[in-house]
Amino acid sequence: MRVIITPNHQEHQSPYEIWNGEQTPHQEIPARVENIIAALKNTHHELVELEQKVPMRILRAIHSSRYLSFLSDFCPTLSDGEYKYPSVFALHAQTEDRYKYPLTRLGFYSFDMYTPLSNATFRVALDSASAAYQAAFEVKNRAQKVAFALCRPPGHHAEPNQMGGYCYLNNAAVAAQFFSQFGKVATLDVDFHHGNGTQHIFYEREDVLTVSLHADPDWKFPHFSGYADEKGAGDGDGFNLNIPLQQGTTNSQYQRSLVKALTRIKEFGAEYLVVSFGADTHADDPIGGFALTTKYFTKMAKTIAELELPTVIVMEGGYNTSKLGDNVVSFLSGF
Amino acid sequence: MRVIITPNHQEHQSPYEIWNGEQTPHQEIPARVENIIAALKNTHHELVELEQKVPMRILRAIHSSRYLSFLSDFCPTLSDGEYKYPSVFALHAQTEDRYKYPLTRLGFYSFDMYTPLSNATFRVALDSASAAYQAAFEVKNRAQKVAFALCRPPGHHAEPNQMGGYCYLNNAAVAAQFFSQFGKVATLDVDFHHGNGTQHIFYEREDVLTVSLHADPDWKFPHFSGYADEKGAGDGDGFNLNIPLQQGTTNSQYQRSLVKALTRIKEFGAEYLVVSFGADTHADDPIGGFALTTKYFTKMAKTIAELELPTVIVMEGGYNTSKLGDNVVSFLSGF
Repeated sequence: MRVIITPNHQEHQSPYEIWNGEQTPHQEIPARVENIIAALKNTHHELVELEQKVPMRILRAIHSSRYLSFLSDFCPTLSDGEYKYPSVFALHAQTEDRYKYPLTRLGFYSFDMYTPLSNATFRVALDSASAAYQAAFEVKNRAQKVAFALCRPPGHHAEPNQMGGYCYLNNAAVAAQFFSQFGKVATLDVDFHHGNGTQHIFYEREDVLTVSLHADPDWKFPHFSGYADEKGAGDGDGFNLNIPLQQGTTNSQYQRSLVKALTRIKEFGAEYLVVSFGADTHADDPIGGFALTTKYFTKMAKTIAELELPTVIVMEGGYNTSKLGDNVVSFLSGF
Repeated sequence: MRVIITPNHQEHQSPYEIWNGEQTPHQEIPARVENIIAALKNTHHELVELEQKVPMRILRAIHSSRYLSFLSDFCPTLSDGEYKYPSVFALHAQTEDRYKYPLTRLGFYSFDMYTPLSNATFRVALDSASAAYQAAFEVKNRAQKVAFALCRPPGHHAEPNQMGGYCYLNNAAVAAQFFSQFGKVATLDVDFHHGNGTQHIFYEREDVLTVSLHADPDWKFPHFSGYADEKGAGDGDGFNLNIPLQQGTTNSQYQRSLVKALTRIKEFGAEYLVVSFGADTHADDPIGGFALTTKYFTKMAKTIAELELPTVIVMEGGYNTSKLGDNVVSFLSGF
C-alpha cells in the first residue's frame, strides 16, 4: 500500500496542553509518526513523500473562509517557539463575522485548551490535509484500491470553523469532499474519540454518510457531540450514525458494532470510503479506555476491506507512542 | 449611605487565572473588598452586614435554571482547596439540554479561563447577589435614595447561562430585575469592561434599558460583545446602548460620553437606576487602560446623581487594590 508522509510534521510540536488549569505534557507529538514510519520500513508498504497540495476549493467546501483566513493570517505573525493558547471563548450564539483582534478570533475559533497555534501550525496542517488529498487523488486516478495518509496533525475534531482535539484542518473531510465529486462517500471513524468535525462538516448532506464508533461522549472528549440520537439534519437527516461505546469495550463487542456500521454503509450504497483510523482504542493507550488488542486491528481492517470500496485511510489519534507502529502495521495488513 | 457587605466573600479566592496557557496570579482577590471596607470605616457611610437572601424567582428570571442547578450541584462536590477550570468549551450552536458529565457542563457554562469553581463559589456568589438584592429592597422600601452593594465576586460578565470574567451570578441584573417589578429600570455600567452579561440578560426587554461605557471590546475583554451597533433585539430593540472608548480615555473624554449615556436614560424615562461601578477605569489599574483620576470619580457620581433616581450601586471590578478604597470613597461621596 502507498503511504503518504509529510516530512515537515516535526515542525509542529505543541509544548503542553492545559487540563483543569494545569500544563500537562502534550500527547500529540512527532515521535508518534516517527514510530509508525520506523515500523512501516520493515514491511512491504511503500512510503511516499507528499507531492500534491490540497486545492483551496476543497478546503473552502469543508471549512469557513474566515476560519481559513484566520489560520493563514495569524500563524505567520508568531515568532519561532511562540505558542498561542485561547483564553476567552465565544459567548453562546455569537457569529463569526465581526472580530478583528487576533486573540479574540483565536478564542472564537477554538473549543479547547489542547490545540495551540505556532508559526508552523497552519503550514504543517496544510501538508497533513494535502496528504489526505493526495491519497484520495491516487485512489481515484491510479489502479490502487487503497492508500494511507499518515497525517499529523490529525483532523477529525476540526469543525467547520473551530480547531480542537489537536486538530486544525479536517483531513478525512478533505478526502471525502474530493471523492464526493465522483459518487457517494461514506466516512468511517474508528478512532477512540468521536469524529465531531467530520460529522458536522457533512451534517446536512445526503451524499456523504458519516459513521463513527467511539467512547460515549458523556464520558470522554469531545463531550459536546457523538450521541446516538444525532442523525443528521435537513437533506442530511438520516445520514449520520453514531455508535457510542462504553469503557472497557472488548474486541468482540467492538466487532459487533463495526458490523452494524458497515451494514449501514452498504445499505447507503457508498462508492468511496474514508477511514479515520486511531490506535487509541488499544488497551494500553494512555488517554483511551477500550480493551482492543494489536491483533484485533487486523481483523477490524479485514472486516472493513470486505466492503471492497476504493478507500483512503487517514491517520487520526493513538498516543501510546511505542506501540503505535505495531498497531498501524497490524491495521494496514488487513487490507 | 448604607453599604451592604458579605462577610463570607473571603472563602472565594481563585488561585490563578490562565492567560495564553500560563498560570498568572488571580486579580480578583479578597484584599480588594478589605481595602474598600477599611477606607469606608473612615467615612460617614454605614456598613451593614448582609441580612437578606435573593429569592430564587429573581435568579430564575435572569439566569437559566440549568445553569443555576449546575452551580448549586457541582460546587459542593469539590473538596476544600480544590478548584476546577474548564478545558473543553461548547462547540458553536450547541444547546444546554443534554450534558450530564460535570466537566462537560463546566465547559458549556464557561466562556473563559479566568473563572474557576471551588466548593465555596456558589455560596459566596449567592451572598454577593443577595447584597445587590438587599440594596435594591432597601432603596425600594425605606426612605433612602441610594445604597451600595459591596459585591464580591463581581457580576456584570455573568451571562444568562455562562460564567466568565470572574463573575458567576449577575448582581446588577438581580437589582434591576427586582426594580423592574415596580417601574422602568436603567442599568448604567461604568466598569472598565463591557457589561456583556447585563446586556444579554435584558437584551429583548423594553422595560430595562442597559447602557455601558467601556473599553472597545475589539481591544479588551470580553471581546465578543460591547460593540456600538448592538442595540437590543425583539421588544428590546433600541433599549441597549454601548459606548466603546479608546485606550487612554481621559476624564473629560469620559465625561462627554457619560452625559450622552445619561441623556438616553432620561429620555427612556427610567424610574430606577442600577449602577455597575468598577474602579478599573482608574489610570493606575493593572488591567485597565483609561486615564481617569480618583478625583474624577466624585464628579462622575455627581453627574449620575443628577438623575435623582432611586439608585443601587453595585461593586464590579477594580484591581489596583491599594487605591481601591480611595476610589470607591471618592465615587460614593458624589451621591
